[in-house]
Amino acid sequence: MSEEPLLGRLESGKVHLGKDAVKVLYEQGYFGRPLDDGLELTLVEAAYLLDRSRLRIEYDGHILSFRSFFELASSFEKGFEFRYVVYKDLRERGYYVQPGVPDFRVYPRGGHPGKTPAEFYVFVVSERTPLPIERIVEPLRLSSQMRRRLMLAVVDEESDITYYEVRESNPSGRTESAEPGGQATLLDDRVVLWDPKASERLHKHGFYGKMIGERLQLSLVETAYLLERGMIQLVDRSGVPVPLDELMRRASEIEEDFEMKYRVYRDLRDRKLVVKTGFKFGTHFRVYKSVDAEKRGTHSEYLVHTVRVDHVFHLPVLSRAVRLAHSVRKMMVFAYSDDGVEYVEVRRLKP
Amino acid sequence: MSEEPLLGRLESGKVHLGKDAVKVLYEQGYFGRPLDDGLELTLVEAAYLLDRSRLRIEYDGHILSFRSFFELASSFEKGFEFRYVVYKDLRERGYYVQPGVPDFRVYPRGGHPGKTPAEFYVFVVSERTPLPIERIVEPLRLSSQMRRRLMLAVVDEESDITYYEVRESNPSGRTESAEPGGQATLLDDRVVLWDPKASERLHKHGFYGKMIGERLQLSLVETAYLLERGMIQLVDRSGVPVPLDELMRRASEIEEDFEMKYRVYRDLRDRKLVVKTGFKFGTHFRVYKSVDAEKRGTHSEYLVHTVRVDHVFHLPVLSRAVRLAHSVRKMMVFAYSDDGVEYVEVRRLKP
Repeated sequence: MSEEPLLGRLESGKVHLGKDAVKVLYEQGYFGRPLDDGLELTLVEAAYLLDRSRLRIEYDGHILSFRSFFELASSFEKGFEFRYVVYKDLRERGYYVQPGVPDFRVYPRGGHPGKTPAEFYVFVVSERTPLPIERIVEPLRLSSQMRRRLMLAVVDEESDITYYEVRESNPSGRTESAEPGGQATLLDDRVVLWDPKASERLHKHGFYGKMIGERLQLSLVETAYLLERGMIQLVDRSGVPVPLDELMRRASEIEEDFEMKYRVYRDLRDRKLVVKTGFKFGTHFRVYKSVDAEKRGTHSEYLVHTVRVDHVFHLPVLSRAVRLAHSVRKMMVFAYSDDGVEYVEVRRLKP
Repeated sequence: MSEEPLLGRLESGKVHLGKDAVKVLYEQGYFGRPLDDGLELTLVEAAYLLDRSRLRIEYDGHILSFRSFFELASSFEKGFEFRYVVYKDLRERGYYVQPGVPDFRVYPRGGHPGKTPAEFYVFVVSERTPLPIERIVEPLRLSSQMRRRLMLAVVDEESDITYYEVRESNPSGRTESAEPGGQATLLDDRVVLWDPKASERLHKHGFYGKMIGERLQLSLVETAYLLERGMIQLVDRSGVPVPLDELMRRASEIEEDFEMKYRVYRDLRDRKLVVKTGFKFGTHFRVYKSVDAEKRGTHSEYLVHTVRVDHVFHLPVLSRAVRLAHSVRKMMVFAYSDDGVEYVEVRRLKP
């Protein structure tokens, strides 16, 4: 770039340039916002252009070095360093980027401001910042309303960036409901269905439980669902019937979040999905659109993890969950239950 | 099996059989412990043989059905159901299994009691049981002393079993130490080294930081290490020097466990390993035996996660970490620091 760098003034957290900058910076690269009397750059845009020697910046009677500008900007704006590395990375990948809500708007390849709508809203977060679920749900609602996709850019402690797309999910399957089974006994934290025929039927048609010899071991969520739907009878070790509310009470003693987990289990089963434990993947459930119990090795499509409505995501944990889901070719879905049950899918983006 | 089933008596939590059982059950299959007057079976062994019709069990004047025996046994012994599914699974895989500490001893293929020493000590846990680190370290010490391997058998809510081997680890690398760099500025939660030559040197020889343009961004642990080893000078935004203890104090405000994490970082670096953030894998560090910064795509051998000495493992989380490490062909190592730093590797076993 052999052009003479333009001169800007740092003032009230923005960098202001004259009218000539509109042609050079805005029209050629969609940097800044054109105003009546010139062009206005955010600190992030200005740092990017300063680093490329497209700009000189005057402040308090001095021309700032990159180091001085960077130190100033990072003291003016919380999170400046994070936004800078993300902005720089997206720009260097060839995208036009404008400031927006929550942090940036990114235009699709071949598009630019004034020609096409933005494709993504970008939300920049530090790996270290715990992220309450509503801080994801809010921009997600906004993006959906505006028909934009939501990109989460997570900056780690070494300034590497991982991009995610967050979107609403509406999983559904095509499993037929299983036929009623027989009597089962509640042991400490699991349940055994004794009748070999009933066991086989429930296992084969709904992929409920696990056959241990000729008997079916059911988990507590499976038992609650089958009991609520009238498909088994449950007794304790002395043969006394255990009604649903009693099972719920005992299960909640064993597992703190049982009720929350069961609400999601039931919703997924009611959506004709087959739901099994996701223990091997570190999530609550692995979920199949349909299962042929005869055929081994059917692939589950989703990993579903249930979180409270006031859940706070720790990004290293989120990162691990999504990475693991991808490594086994499944979608990572978080479910939270307010009134109904909501599903949010998080997947890795490679912009 | 057309043999007439043997008759045993359930008494004080064991099943007792006559002398004839020694020949039939012990000598042919290494079930039970021979005593002067017969053979003694644990409840788990008895349930296994009862299910295979090799045994009838008398209790309180009655012959018990499998269901009655199972319900009784599970009320006598906490964790009976878990041990039963693990015992059954290992037996069906063709291993000889004897009761032991913590739960079972497993003999190597081709070996058996009286001929060969056991290969594994087996520790059976429910997916749901939180596991304090000392409950892993204790049997690990015992196993090492006895020169046995330690197997952790985790039973999930659907009675599927995942086997892990837990062992002491002693990672070491072969990186040469990097040459001293220059002056760096502490920003909010990261550090920038401004001199391009010093930046390149530290990045190239020690794989420290990340080059952002011509400048090196360092993480807080990297900065603390380089500062402690006298390889950089650190100043704040106003140019005032920041000594190590002040950096440690500020870093601990940003990250609660900074000191613990730094102790492990330093130990790993001192072991001539190259240590980078493991954020993308959901762990504290990814660790390389050596790194050629010229060559892209060097593979890190370990994922290291730092835990407190009173850490409690939640098995779904452990499962996810180990599974993820395997999916990227790395060893999963947990580090905890008491006096020095100890490393424990957990890996999946397929018996």
